[in-house]
Amino acid sequence: MIRFLLIGAGRIGRIHAENIVRGGASALVAVTDADSRAAAELAKKWSCRAVEPDTALAQGDVDAVLIASSTDTHADWIERCAAAGKPVFCEKPLDLDIQRATQCMRKAQAAGVALYLGFNRRYDPSFARLKREIGAGTVGALETLHITSRDPAPPPVEYIRRSGGLFRDMMIHDLDMARWLLGAEPVEVFARGSALVDPEIGAAGDVDTAMVMLRTADGRLCQIANSRRCSFGYDQRIEAFGAAGMVSANNHTSTSVTVAGKQGYTTEPALPFFLERYADAYRLELEDFIGALQGKKVELATGEDGRRALLLADAAQRSLTSGAPVTLS
Amino acid sequence: MIRFLLIGAGRIGRIHAENIVRGGASALVAVTDADSRAAAELAKKWSCRAVEPDTALAQGDVDAVLIASSTDTHADWIERCAAAGKPVFCEKPLDLDIQRATQCMRKAQAAGVALYLGFNRRYDPSFARLKREIGAGTVGALETLHITSRDPAPPPVEYIRRSGGLFRDMMIHDLDMARWLLGAEPVEVFARGSALVDPEIGAAGDVDTAMVMLRTADGRLCQIANSRRCSFGYDQRIEAFGAAGMVSANNHTSTSVTVAGKQGYTTEPALPFFLERYADAYRLELEDFIGALQGKKVELATGEDGRRALLLADAAQRSLTSGAPVTLS
Amino acid sequence: MIRFLLIGAGRIGRIHAENIVRGGASALVAVTDADSRAAAELAKKWSCRAVEPDTALAQGDVDAVLIASSTDTHADWIERCAAAGKPVFCEKPLDLDIQRATQCMRKAQAAGVALYLGFNRRYDPSFARLKREIGAGTVGALETLHITSRDPAPPPVEYIRRSGGLFRDMMIHDLDMARWLLGAEPVEVFARGSALVDPEIGAAGDVDTAMVMLRTADGRLCQIANSRRCSFGYDQRIEAFGAAGMVSANNHTSTSVTVAGKQGYTTEPALPFFLERYADAYRLELEDFIGALQGKKVELATGEDGRRALLLADAAQRSLTSGAPVTLS
Amino acid sequence: MIRFLLIGAGRIGRIHAENIVRGGASALVAVTDADSRAAAELAKKWSCRAVEPDTALAQGDVDAVLIASSTDTHADWIERCAAAGKPVFCEKPLDLDIQRATQCMRKAQAAGVALYLGFNRRYDPSFARLKREIGAGTVGALETLHITSRDPAPPPVEYIRRSGGLFRDMMIHDLDMARWLLGAEPVEVFARGSALVDPEIGAAGDVDTAMVMLRTADGRLCQIANSRRCSFGYDQRIEAFGAAGMVSANNHTSTSVTVAGKQGYTTEPALPFFLERYADAYRLELEDFIGALQGKKVELATGEDGRRALLLADAAQRSLTSGAPVTLS
Repeated sequence: MIRFLLIGAGRIGRIHAENIVRGGASALVAVTDADSRAAAELAKKWSCRAVEPDTALAQGDVDAVLIASSTDTHADWIERCAAAGKPVFCEKPLDLDIQRATQCMRKAQAAGVALYLGFNRRYDPSFARLKREIGAGTVGALETLHITSRDPAPPPVEYIRRSGGLFRDMMIHDLDMARWLLGAEPVEVFARGSALVDPEIGAAGDVDTAMVMLRTADGRLCQIANSRRCSFGYDQRIEAFGAAGMVSANNHTSTSVTVAGKQGYTTEPALPFFLERYADAYRLELEDFIGALQGKKVELATGEDGRRALLLADAAQRSLTSGAPVTLS
Repeated sequence: MIRFLLIGAGRIGRIHAENIVRGGASALVAVTDADSRAAAELAKKWSCRAVEPDTALAQGDVDAVLIASSTDTHADWIERCAAAGKPVFCEKPLDLDIQRATQCMRKAQAAGVALYLGFNRRYDPSFARLKREIGAGTVGALETLHITSRDPAPPPVEYIRRSGGLFRDMMIHDLDMARWLLGAEPVEVFARGSALVDPEIGAAGDVDTAMVMLRTADGRLCQIANSRRCSFGYDQRIEAFGAAGMVSANNHTSTSVTVAGKQGYTTEPALPFFLERYADAYRLELEDFIGALQGKKVELATGEDGRRALLLADAAQRSLTSGAPVTLS
Repeated sequence: MIRFLLIGAGRIGRIHAENIVRGGASALVAVTDADSRAAAELAKKWSCRAVEPDTALAQGDVDAVLIASSTDTHADWIERCAAAGKPVFCEKPLDLDIQRATQCMRKAQAAGVALYLGFNRRYDPSFARLKREIGAGTVGALETLHITSRDPAPPPVEYIRRSGGLFRDMMIHDLDMARWLLGAEPVEVFARGSALVDPEIGAAGDVDTAMVMLRTADGRLCQIANSRRCSFGYDQRIEAFGAAGMVSANNHTSTSVTVAGKQGYTTEPALPFFLERYADAYRLELEDFIGALQGKKVELATGEDGRRALLLADAAQRSLTSGAPVTLS
Repeated sequence: MIRFLLIGAGRIGRIHAENIVRGGASALVAVTDADSRAAAELAKKWSCRAVEPDTALAQGDVDAVLIASSTDTHADWIERCAAAGKPVFCEKPLDLDIQRATQCMRKAQAAGVALYLGFNRRYDPSFARLKREIGAGTVGALETLHITSRDPAPPPVEYIRRSGGLFRDMMIHDLDMARWLLGAEPVEVFARGSALVDPEIGAAGDVDTAMVMLRTADGRLCQIANSRRCSFGYDQRIEAFGAAGMVSANNHTSTSVTVAGKQGYTTEPALPFFLERYADAYRLELEDFIGALQGKKVELATGEDGRRALLLADAAQRSLTSGAPVTLS
C-alpha cells in the first residue's frame, strides 16, 4: 500500500485523488494546495488530512508524492521532494524553462529519488497498443509517424499568455509520443504555425494551428498537426507506418450508436476532451507509478523524458521564429 | 462472339443492351419490344436491328436470347426460345405462377436449351465474395444467415397489384440468396408481414414490411427482413454466421467521404437503388452467361433455381395468410 | 446515502459490491451468502459486516437489498424483503417458474415494497441511447427491431440443465430489450432453435442457436438471433428501423486501433463478455435504483417487467416445442 | 461528337482509348505510337486507324488530341498540336524541366489552343466531393490540409533514374491536389525525404519516403506524406480541416465485406493501384475535357496548373537538397 501526499487540489488533482483512493494498492493520506479551502474540501471528500504546503513534506506517513499543482511550482516541489527523499509523480511539464527543468531533474537524480512525469497518453489503451504493435513488429520497420492532436476549444487568452506557447503547452504531449513511438531522438525539428482560430492568440504572440516535422538520425520522419479548436471533439489520432503495414489509433466515442437517415450514416463525435478520453490513462499511469516503486518495468515518462520533450518544444518554437529547421545534437 | 437478341427495351433491357455491346465477347444484333418505338430507339442507339416480336426468333444470326420483357411474357418467350433452340438468359421470375413457371422450365429442359435466370445479386462483388468465403470455410460450419433487403421507396400501388405480392416480387431475390448461401433447401418457412409504410398497400392486399424465418433439414436458420421503404438508400446487407466467425456484406456508397462536425462523423447513405448497387452485377452475370454457353462452370441461377425460389415465395405467402409455418418436402 | 445489504457474494455480487462502495450515494453495510466464507471475504474487502442469511434482514441499518444469489433463491429473498419492508434490486430472473415469479412479485406489491430487476442492458450507454433516439423520433415511427445476441462460449452442460433453457436463461434479456424498445407487448411469438454448437446441449434437451420473431398488435415486427458461441467476442447488437431511418448499436471494443496490412484493415473483436461490455451498465443501473428510491423516474425493469419477459420466454419455449407460433393475450 | 487522335498506345493510352470509345460524345479515329505495332494493335481493337507519328497531326478528321506518350515527348507533341490548332489533353507532366514546360505551354497559349493536363485525381469521386464540400463551406474556413499518398510498390530503379525524382514524378499529383483544394498558391515549401524502402533508390540519388509542408500567404498549412511502398494497397487519403469541422476521403475497396473472427474484424485492403482507384477519374476527366471544348466550366487542370505543380515539385527537391525551406514568390 503506497500512501500518497497529493500536491494540488485542482481539476487534475481531483482526478488523481480519486484514482489513488480507488486503486487497490494506494491510499491518499494528505492533500495540500496554495488554496487551503480547496485542499480542505478534497481532503474531506476522501477522508484524509489537508496540510499546509510548508509542512506537507514533513508528514511521516507519506510514501510518495503526486504533484498536480500549477506548472510554475513543479520544479520547486520536485526539489523539496528530492530533499525529503520522496519519490515523485509530477504532472507535465517539469518546468517551462529548460534550465530550471534540467536543474530540478538533476537534484532528484542526485538524491536518488524516482521522478516520473505525467505524459498520460502513453497509458491511453489505444496508444499503448500502438506502441506494443510497433514493438512486436506488426508494421515491420517503422518508417513514418503521423500525429494529429486537436483540442476542442482554445483556452482563455490569459492562459495562453502564461502557457509557454503551443509547442511547450500542448504539442509537448505529441513530442513525447513521437520520441516514445519512434524509439529514437529526433535530430531535426521544423515547425510552422499560424493564428487561424483566434487573432487574439496571435496578438498574444502565440499560434493556435501548427505543424511540425521531425527527422531521426536514420531518416525516419514524423508529422505532427495541432489545432486549438476542433468542432468534432478532442481529436487524438496516430498512424504509424512501416515496411509491413500501418497501425493506427482513432478517436474514442461514448457509444457505438449509428444513426442512418437521408443524410447518410452518422456516428458520434470524438469524446469531448482529455478528462473523458484519458480517464483510463490517468488510472493506468498511477498503477504503473506504484508498480515502478515496487520494481516493475514501466512505460512511464521519466524526468529525462520530460526534459527531452521540452528540448523538442523549444526547438519547434525556435524553428517557428527563425523559419529554418533546427538541428539537435 | 455471342450474338444476342434482346427482348424488352425497357429500363432493365437497356442496361443489358449496354453490357452486351460493351462486353468483349458479345454483340447485340437485334432488339424487340411490344412497343416498337422503344425497340427502334434502342436499336438505333447501339446500331442493331429492331425486329417484330413475331419474327424475332427467326433471325438466323442470333446465338442467344436475353429476356427482359414484362414478367407475364417470360414463360411464353422461354417456350418460344426452347422451340427455336436458343439459349436463354431471362430476368426473374420465370412466372408468378408456379405451375406456369415449372411448365416453361420443363420445355426448355426437354429441348436441351440452356435457361438461366437473372438473380443478379449472386454477381454483386460483395455477395459473391460472401459465397466464396463461406465455401472456403472462413466462418467454419455455417449456422445462421441474416438477410436485410429494403427498397428506397415503394412502387406505385398499381404496380403492387400486379406484382404477385412482396414475397414473389421482392423477397424472391432474398430467397434465392438464402438457398444459394445456405447451399441447402429450406424445409420450413414462417412469414409475417404488415402494411406499415403505406395503408394503400394493405388495402391492395399486400404487405410492405415483412420478416421470414427459414429452417434447413439440418437445423440451420435464416432470417430475412424486407421493407418497401428505406430513408438511407437501398439497404442490401447479409451476415453469414458460423462456428469460426462471421462474414458480412455491408451497403455500398458512391464515395469514401466522411464529414466530421458537431454532429459527429457522417458517411454517405447507401447507393440509391438497384441500378447503382447492382451495376457491376448486371455486367458480371452477362459475362458468366456467355461463359456458361462456352462451357464454364458458373454461379448463375438456373430455371430450376427460379422455380425453387418461387416455391419459397409461395410458401411465405401461404404462411402469412395462415399464420402458421409452412413445411416444404 | 442508501445503506445496502448484499445477498450473494459470487461473481455478480462482487461487481455490485464494488459499485455500491464506489458510488457517491451508497454504502455497503452487510453481505450474506450461503457460503459464509465467500461472504466473509467480500465483507473484509469492503470493510463491512458478513451476516448469516437467517438474520440478514434483521439488520437495522439496511435501507435496501441487492439480491445477487442463485436464481432458485430469488423468489424467497424477495418475499422476505417484502415482509421486512426493504426495497429490492434483484438480478434477473425473478424465478424460472412463471407462477412462482408472479407470486413473489405480488407479495412485494402487496407490501408496497419497490422491486426492480437487473436487466442491465437497459443501462448500456449504446442501448440506452438507442431508446432515447427512438423516443426522440429519430427513426420516425418504429417499424422493425433486430436484436443479435451471442455469447462467446457455451456454459457447461451442467449449467445448461439447470438454466431453464436458452429462452429463459439467455434470450430473456433480448425479450426484455424488445418490449422496452418497442414500447408495446408482443402478441405473438414464433421460435426456432437447434443444437449446432454442441450436440451435448441438444442431448440435454436445450438448443444453442435460436431465432425468434415477435409481432405487436399494431403489426410491428422483431427478430431476435441468439447463439451460445461466437468467435469474435460477445456479440451484442441492435438495429431499430422506422419510417425516417435506422438507429443501430454496434459492439464495443477495448481500443480504437486498426492494423492495416496485406490482409486488409483489422480492428479488434467485440469485448469478451458481459463483465466487460456491461461494466458501465452495472454501475448505472445501481445509480438509478438509488435514484428510484429517492423518487427519480427511471428506466429500471420492474418486477412486472421481469414477469412479462418470462412470459415471452415461456411462449418461445412452447413455440419451439410445438412448431407453431404462440399467441399472447 | 469529338473525334480523337490518341498519341501513345501504352498502358495509360489504352485506358483513354476505351474511355473515348465508350463515352457517348467522342470517337477514336486514329492512334499513333513510336512503336507502330502497339499502335496497330490498339487501332485494331477499337476499329480505328493506326497512323505514323510524322503524319498524325495531318489527319483532317481529328478534333482533339490526347497525349499519353512518354513524358519526354509531351512538350514536343504539345507544340505540334499548337501549330496544328488542335486542342490537347495531355497526361501529366508537361515536362520534367520547368523551362521546357513553360515554353510549350506558352506556345499553346499563343496559338489559342486549349491545353489540359491529366491530373486525374481531381476527378476521383471522393476527392471531387471533398472539393465541393470545401467550396460549400462544410468545414468553414479551411485551415489545414493533410494528404497521404503511397504507391503499393516502388517502380524499377531504372524508371526511378529517368523519373525526375519522387517530387516531380509522384508527389506532383499531391502538389496539384494541395493547390486545388487550398484554392491558393503555397508561398513556402519544406521537404524531407529518405530512402527507407530500397537503398538502391537512394543510390540512384532519389528518395522513396518523403514529407512536405506547404504554407500559404494567409498562414494555412498543408502536410503531404509519400511512400513508394504500402502493404495494404494504394493509399490515397486526404483530410481537410477547418473552423467548422473536417471532411476526409478514405481509400476505396472492391467489396464491402467484413470478416469477423478471433482476430477481430477485417475489411479489404485499399484498391491495388491507380488503374483501379482512378478508373472512374479517367472516365470523368475525359468527359469534362469534351465538355470544356464545348464551353463547359470544368475542374480540369490547365497547362498553367501543370507548370505551377512542377514549380512546387522543383522547390521541394531544392528544399530536400538544401535542408532549408524554399520561398516562392
